Amino acid sequence: MQRYLVTGVSGFVAKHFLNLLEEKGEPCEVIGLDVNSSSIGGYRFPISVEVMNLLDSQAINNFIVKFKPTRILHLASFSSVAESWKSPVTSFNNNTNIFLNVLDPLRMNNIPCKVLSVGSSEEYGVVTPAELPLRETQPLNPGSPYGVARVAQEQLSRLFAQGYGLDVVMTRSFNHIGPGQRDQFVISSFVKQVVQARRAGHKSLVLRSGNTKVIRDFLDVRDVVRAYFELLVNGRKGEVYNICSGIGQSLDHVLSTLSELTGVTITQEVAPELLRPNELLEIVGSAGKIHSELGWTPRIDFRTSLLDMVDYWDDKLSQDGNPDIPR
Amino acid sequence: MQRYLVTGVSGFVAKHFLNLLEEKGEPCEVIGLDVNSSSIGGYRFPISVEVMNLLDSQAINNFIVKFKPTRILHLASFSSVAESWKSPVTSFNNNTNIFLNVLDPLRMNNIPCKVLSVGSSEEYGVVTPAELPLRETQPLNPGSPYGVARVAQEQLSRLFAQGYGLDVVMTRSFNHIGPGQRDQFVISSFVKQVVQARRAGHKSLVLRSGNTKVIRDFLDVRDVVRAYFELLVNGRKGEVYNICSGIGQSLDHVLSTLSELTGVTITQEVAPELLRPNELLEIVGSAGKIHSELGWTPRIDFRTSLLDMVDYWDDKLSQDGNPDIPR
Repeated sequence: MQRYLVTGVSGFVAKHFLNLLEEKGEPCEVIGLDVNSSSIGGYRFPISVEVMNLLDSQAINNFIVKFKPTRILHLASFSSVAESWKSPVTSFNNNTNIFLNVLDPLRMNNIPCKVLSVGSSEEYGVVTPAELPLRETQPLNPGSPYGVARVAQEQLSRLFAQGYGLDVVMTRSFNHIGPGQRDQFVISSFVKQVVQARRAGHKSLVLRSGNTKVIRDFLDVRDVVRAYFELLVNGRKGEVYNICSGIGQSLDHVLSTLSELTGVTITQEVAPELLRPNELLEIVGSAGKIHSELGWTPRIDFRTSLLDMVDYWDDKLSQDGNPDIPR
Repeated sequence: MQRYLVTGVSGFVAKHFLNLLEEKGEPCEVIGLDVNSSSIGGYRFPISVEVMNLLDSQAINNFIVKFKPTRILHLASFSSVAESWKSPVTSFNNNTNIFLNVLDPLRMNNIPCKVLSVGSSEEYGVVTPAELPLRETQPLNPGSPYGVARVAQEQLSRLFAQGYGLDVVMTRSFNHIGPGQRDQFVISSFVKQVVQARRAGHKSLVLRSGNTKVIRDFLDVRDVVRAYFELLVNGRKGEVYNICSGIGQSLDHVLSTLSELTGVTITQEVAPELLRPNELLEIVGSAGKIHSELGWTPRIDFRTSLLDMVDYWDDKLSQDGNPDIPR
């Protein structure tokens, strides 16, 4: 029976991963770690959550020695690029160092375990249009402290696999979307605002945003966690895999699709404070490697993701009892 | 007047840097930081040493705010590749994290200061013979936890320069040699053993070592610190420079030169425990960039370095009062 350790267990991606485990129905046991206490339940498999600061290497070591996980999904991360510019030390510690704190006990205590090291498309950094779609062989040129931290995490993963024989598999994950995502992320914020307008009976909405010409590779979180599961089962030790849709969507296209799905006319207004200097116009990945090696391919199309997000925000805003006043 | 902050001030390279400052004779003030207390003096410029663990970010911040250095030479490092395999977390913390702890206070407190971030040829990692001599444009492919830590340090340096405008200059420094180097380094260990044999009146020596066919790029520490000084004065912000001789020397050639210089016949014997798996046969850098930009070029030839190291060990072993029994 697999014993899963999921770090960052109270987050958006973890929730969908637990749902997938439930769907799979294979017997397993899960312990989640998180900085905040949270009650997670309602699954058929046993699950518990321990509050832990992953900077406390001794506590993690003790925990891992005791629990002896067979699979680790490491989702805990300070993943904001903007925050990494404001607090580079904090960002670095809470990405690279916490990862090392989770990984090294396996080496030191000789615990056999498959580890998924979740990285980011931010590792690629500045790229030229001719290099798209980005493949795993692309040189890494990180453009933010967060990107540097993820590159270090990946390089350490590779060395732990090659040098110590640890069964570590790495990802470079592109933008996620899906129900349950917080509104600090661009698409979820768009959907929330449109749903708020519709609930308030408005037929139109002025939506402030950064540059909507930018093109990004968005993948539904349910496809993301399916890829993670496949990698935890069959990913090759020491290898890195892009997790992406392979399709570029402009934010303009997102807005027009949202308008069509909800019947709300959207007028976009540029918010200067949301324009990012030197922002790359287009970032799209190739999922060719994980497709050819593991047969994984996205199942949820972009329109379906958006529809599910509309439903999510509709439910959430009605539960919050504050549906009518856009915040 | 320049206010120098030198981290790792009790080390081999720092000592030669202080000697160079003395030689230059320009008015300056130096504060050294080190984990161990050490009394350093005898210079015409004021110098003091503070004991500090660079993992203590608050202490460093307070110190930097108070001292307001104008130039930082960051030499503190856990620089052993072998140790980084044994204790990757410790190696990472004591390279990347201590560097960030020194750098970030300049950003947070807006202190104008030129910083030299000392990196390593280990950042290049696995390379093919066709890629020699290594230039700064070579993709980085670190092959040890220490190498990964140095890559992260360099990438963070570049971002701090580009993103925050900090005046950081980076190096990739190749193997150092010179008087004062500890005998945990290969050449210094060779010289010490040969000098011990000569002092004991032996005409020949059986010297155990790893693979002596390997070719490395050795640069005299006095040329190294001259390069560091030039970079602290004129190095371009956010740029990385190889610090190397550009000349490959095989360890066999080192041994034959030593034999010639001392009159001791050396028989090499392979020590299996010193053979490193996957060791690269040849690593040589190009110093073209620092030469063309700053006019720096090595002044001390390899033979002179070895002679000075022979004299150093002769002096040291006679002072230690234990000249006759090889350890």
